[in-house]
Amino acid sequence: MTTLYGYFRSSAAYRVRIALNLKGLEYDQALVNLVMGEQRGDAFRALNPQGLVPLLSIDDGTHLTQSLAICEYLEERYPEPPLLPIDPAERARVRALAQLVACEIHPLNNLRILKYLVHELKLDDDAKLAWYRHWITEGFDALEAMLSREAGSGDFCHGDAPTLADICLVPQVYNAERFECDLSAYPRIRRIVANCHAQEAFQQAAPGAQPDAS
Amino acid sequence: MTTLYGYFRSSAAYRVRIALNLKGLEYDQALVNLVMGEQRGDAFRALNPQGLVPLLSIDDGTHLTQSLAICEYLEERYPEPPLLPIDPAERARVRALAQLVACEIHPLNNLRILKYLVHELKLDDDAKLAWYRHWITEGFDALEAMLSREAGSGDFCHGDAPTLADICLVPQVYNAERFECDLSAYPRIRRIVANCHAQEAFQQAAPGAQPDAS
Repeated sequence: MTTLYGYFRSSAAYRVRIALNLKGLEYDQALVNLVMGEQRGDAFRALNPQGLVPLLSIDDGTHLTQSLAICEYLEERYPEPPLLPIDPAERARVRALAQLVACEIHPLNNLRILKYLVHELKLDDDAKLAWYRHWITEGFDALEAMLSREAGSGDFCHGDAPTLADICLVPQVYNAERFECDLSAYPRIRRIVANCHAQEAFQQAAPGAQPDAS
Repeated sequence: MTTLYGYFRSSAAYRVRIALNLKGLEYDQALVNLVMGEQRGDAFRALNPQGLVPLLSIDDGTHLTQSLAICEYLEERYPEPPLLPIDPAERARVRALAQLVACEIHPLNNLRILKYLVHELKLDDDAKLAWYRHWITEGFDALEAMLSREAGSGDFCHGDAPTLADICLVPQVYNAERFECDLSAYPRIRRIVANCHAQEAFQQAAPGAQPDAS
């Protein structure tokens, strides 16, 4: 049995839920309450020393970590429908768009970072929000430019079906909206995200649709 | 002709240099002075709206961005020697180790983040160093635990030849040493990095061996 250890609001767990749904795979959920700090407790650390969700436990008891690594694993084991194009340069484009979110935006706006800003650096709410929005603006400015300028873009980040790039983009936009970022300067991003939300795989992966949603 | 746009001290460009060298590929270097802010100028933004190095310009004029996406591209186009194992779960392990560095440590300690800490948040040197070392400790604690605990580890992060995980680890350790982080608690990491440094591909990719080294 496949079990996803996650939390409804974790962007990284949200990515894996979308990928599992797009592949049509059944899975159980093990809920790890990030706000309560369960991911840092001994029980979870025994499974994943990183103290981070998601973790995917697969058939033979193997534990997979890091959301993009998990998505690539799913792509290799269950190739249909594909989350990456066939051509190597196009695959590189999709991975770059995904990593623009996963390496340049999300790591900076993660719960543990925001906690450090507040508890260690004693930032007030305004300064924390300014930090959050600064990295969203930097990242989304670049992403909007790439999506508008590059021939590969379509109804989705690449072509006319969801890929790994959309899997990363949708949770990041969800997160940005939670922090009330102004996304009016990003019509292309918003159109793509709307196209994703029209699909059941994305709807069923949404934070509000999870058993631990509050 | 293949041209790598990079900067000698950029960890992400360093990763791509190692990958190109391991694959035995010839390439030119176009130097982008990050400290002078050249990556944010109009000329470079026209190539990469992200304003980030590395960028790899390949034969047909295609521009590839994001270091891990570039490494995966090189792996797909030039499979030998492999940077990833064959088995999907083992590939996932290598990618997770790589992403533990590339998504959890490096994004937080990048030049542009440290600049924000100093210029926007007015942190003094001690607080900036504490930030830097905090994320190294969090990440390396987890990495050391995974390398020590998991059967896949060998002379390198996975098995007895360099993979994508080592390609990420070596620049991160270089960076940590520049910031005088105490790495004595990480014997496994240090042993693997020493094994990497014994290889010519890693030696020739080192910051000090680049034309823009200062």
